[in-house]
Amino acid sequence: MERLAEALDAWRQAIGTEHVHVDAGTREAAGTATFATSQRVPAVLRPGSREEVQRCLRIAHALRVPVYPVSAGRNYGYGSRVPARTGSVLLELGRMNRVLALDEELAFLTVEPGVTFAQAHAFLEEQGSWLQLTTIGGPPEASLVGNALERGDGGGPYGDIFQHVCDLEVVLPTGEVLRTGPGRYPGAQAAEVLRWGPGPALDGLFSQSNLGVVTRMTFWLAPRAPCVRLVSAPLEDAARLETVVDRLRLLRLEGTVREAFSLWNDYKLFSVLGQYPWEAAGGRTPLPEEVRQRLREEQGLGEWHLSVPLQAPSEEQAQAAWGRVEAVLKGVLPGLTCYREEEVGEDVLRRVPSARNLRMMYWRQRSPMPAEPDPDRDGCGFVWLSCAVPMTGAHVERALAVAEPLPLQYGFEPNLCLLGVSARCAYLVIALVYDRKVEGEDARALECYHALQKAMNEAGYYPARLGIQAPVLGAGAEDDSAKVLGVLKAALDPHGILAPGRYLP
Amino acid sequence: MERLAEALDAWRQAIGTEHVHVDAGTREAAGTATFATSQRVPAVLRPGSREEVQRCLRIAHALRVPVYPVSAGRNYGYGSRVPARTGSVLLELGRMNRVLALDEELAFLTVEPGVTFAQAHAFLEEQGSWLQLTTIGGPPEASLVGNALERGDGGGPYGDIFQHVCDLEVVLPTGEVLRTGPGRYPGAQAAEVLRWGPGPALDGLFSQSNLGVVTRMTFWLAPRAPCVRLVSAPLEDAARLETVVDRLRLLRLEGTVREAFSLWNDYKLFSVLGQYPWEAAGGRTPLPEEVRQRLREEQGLGEWHLSVPLQAPSEEQAQAAWGRVEAVLKGVLPGLTCYREEEVGEDVLRRVPSARNLRMMYWRQRSPMPAEPDPDRDGCGFVWLSCAVPMTGAHVERALAVAEPLPLQYGFEPNLCLLGVSARCAYLVIALVYDRKVEGEDARALECYHALQKAMNEAGYYPARLGIQAPVLGAGAEDDSAKVLGVLKAALDPHGILAPGRYLP
Repeated sequence: MERLAEALDAWRQAIGTEHVHVDAGTREAAGTATFATSQRVPAVLRPGSREEVQRCLRIAHALRVPVYPVSAGRNYGYGSRVPARTGSVLLELGRMNRVLALDEELAFLTVEPGVTFAQAHAFLEEQGSWLQLTTIGGPPEASLVGNALERGDGGGPYGDIFQHVCDLEVVLPTGEVLRTGPGRYPGAQAAEVLRWGPGPALDGLFSQSNLGVVTRMTFWLAPRAPCVRLVSAPLEDAARLETVVDRLRLLRLEGTVREAFSLWNDYKLFSVLGQYPWEAAGGRTPLPEEVRQRLREEQGLGEWHLSVPLQAPSEEQAQAAWGRVEAVLKGVLPGLTCYREEEVGEDVLRRVPSARNLRMMYWRQRSPMPAEPDPDRDGCGFVWLSCAVPMTGAHVERALAVAEPLPLQYGFEPNLCLLGVSARCAYLVIALVYDRKVEGEDARALECYHALQKAMNEAGYYPARLGIQAPVLGAGAEDDSAKVLGVLKAALDPHGILAPGRYLP
Repeated sequence: MERLAEALDAWRQAIGTEHVHVDAGTREAAGTATFATSQRVPAVLRPGSREEVQRCLRIAHALRVPVYPVSAGRNYGYGSRVPARTGSVLLELGRMNRVLALDEELAFLTVEPGVTFAQAHAFLEEQGSWLQLTTIGGPPEASLVGNALERGDGGGPYGDIFQHVCDLEVVLPTGEVLRTGPGRYPGAQAAEVLRWGPGPALDGLFSQSNLGVVTRMTFWLAPRAPCVRLVSAPLEDAARLETVVDRLRLLRLEGTVREAFSLWNDYKLFSVLGQYPWEAAGGRTPLPEEVRQRLREEQGLGEWHLSVPLQAPSEEQAQAAWGRVEAVLKGVLPGLTCYREEEVGEDVLRRVPSARNLRMMYWRQRSPMPAEPDPDRDGCGFVWLSCAVPMTGAHVERALAVAEPLPLQYGFEPNLCLLGVSARCAYLVIALVYDRKVEGEDARALECYHALQKAMNEAGYYPARLGIQAPVLGAGAEDDSAKVLGVLKAALDPHGILAPGRYLP
């Protein structure tokens, strides 16, 4: 603790006393997520520039005090802003919120880690940009950089987000600065357009890791297409899923569908469209089957629901794409409908960041989502598990056979969503939603989470990203990766001061 | 040298005497490229399995004898199979040529490093596969793995090759084995379909580097489209290039053109279509301007020539895409024509690996390309430089202003090609073609190469890949990357035995 006091003094000098927070309120908020956590956060640092981040890390390195970087800290369901290990000082990058470049010709946006989806979208609107931002399932106040580093996924042609970023500026645990890609060379013209410059590609090393703090990143943006459609269909019967997934894979592989489709089950739809029907359920959880059936009938929903966005540069191309989708899917989905923009509302197809999906986290609350939602503060219980499933009907069936029954055994609805993130791989995203204020639920949720992860791993459907509630990687690997990752960690962070326990020990 | 003798003994025990070659002929061939080299190769090892590669590297590590891995060793223009530094033992992986998996559902192919484009294509044909292989500008006998690790580019929707690979199996310089992606976990189902499993993405680390030997890789394959077109146009006048590039960028960004277009200048076309007109040129080099004009007229060529392949799953989609391409390009390219498959020959659009482009290397030879071409053996002089240029007309003009005049000053034709590899970045590929048997040309070619690279770097158009003729990276960087790369190299290869001088020291 003496070291901590010394470090705090040094940090105050380095970034200003007003940006080093040690008050109980801030520290407690920093330790609060949407599930049970026991991490103690000794302080919160808010550096305002890359140079200040360097200073903070050099002090941490010299005095061996662990720090845990977050961009906006909105990683709901995976730990919000809470450090993976107790005793880590939070390095919160929200003050670094400058948009550094927008290039309308080469179609990219360069930002600092504090820039949020809402802010970036507003900026593009303000500039009258012809480009679109990827939208995510998370909140509008999430950080673009934070999301990309977690390898999040979203809507739009660049929804496999980390495949479409470039030129990361990274501060290493020892204070050095690195730029991935050609941007490190004087006067490099292709810095923002070539992912990897000559030599080893280092960007991946800093995603889902604790090897560096990213202080700047370029996002490639797709043009807003003049012609957009939403193809949509209810699946009356979950038995159709297998065939539907196989045909969707064909459409993804051949390039007709150029972005993620989504398949939501009824529980997921209920939780976004409304709140838990406490009265109809007679106060019981999980949702009784007869209430579930009734809700489905009332809202005209199937067991699952498919959405496939189509974007095209011309009416002819949009029409031809829809023709092809219809030819492939209509036979198994007679309810398949193609909506134009004016029919579904501009916001949905124009990629406006929305808090709509946040409602899901308030599903089991007794009062509606407030105007300024804060699931951490509001006691929302919310745990996410995202698993990688090869995109075949057979694999999806097998994964669902694990993911569907388990939550119910612990008293939670299996709130499920299958995202066609790439042509060959879907993410099965399982949400456990509860009310943290209900005695015993916190413990039950984490128990359920661990049982789910174990069962999914055993079936071979490993997670695509990890929350702080997950054990660190390595132990299970059959190759020498644990050793090699250890060597890399020791080389770049010899005192282990950066985010111990986050993905790596 | 004593250590070498000890190592040779150990290698003979490890992989069999018959796979350790020390005869003068083999060693000389291993040191011969398509330009002047002075590297001495003490021996050639030909391991037959991943385990044998591990043994070879453990011996190299223990005895501190450097080894230099090549897959098929067909990296023409960048050094063929010649080690970057003298004294490195060649580790030639050609015996590891098994196709390990083909998945027609999830559309991937898993191969060992010795598998060539010709072999993989023949395998797909044999299996009656519905999938296509990316084709490259290099020879059919090039290795898929080798090409991908150099981050080569090619035709087809997955032409930005390294963006479409997965699950690398890597032997580290110290003998450990690593699998990138989820394949390292027991029973992982998504090994071949999710690039990065949970945790840091390590694949990039082993591309364009000397940090590991890749012994297995999965390639995602695109379906063969039922409807293919080739859109093509001569550019009578190079002044059109600027506008053409800007409009091509639009077509790439919006997704109408889903693979690399290519713009070839007349010299490049001449060199693929025929050989140097020694008689017409009166024996002089470089090609006299009046002969150039006459060749162009005779062959009906413009100063540049554009090719844009289109692939679509349905006739309607192909028609709509061509309609859009025509609307965007016809105004600046009145000669724009859309050819159907039957008009251009099945091979071109069906992605059959072809030796056609190898002809270019024989441009200045006095006899025609033999039936079994081997540019190293045949004394072809051939040096390649590939630079990354942001895809705007203005950048392309600026890069060409450097790349066009310089070769002529050294007596070489500016053999140029602009590849629209991704939506935002083009590769300007400059070939210096000469006859190694002509006194003084070898030296002049490397002088020209270095002058070109210097001038392109100064203009900010850094190389996208490096040959062994290029200096190692690092010195010029403005960030701490040289130091960080040094730390990584020292951590993974403490005795520096793997491919010293290849991209990294």
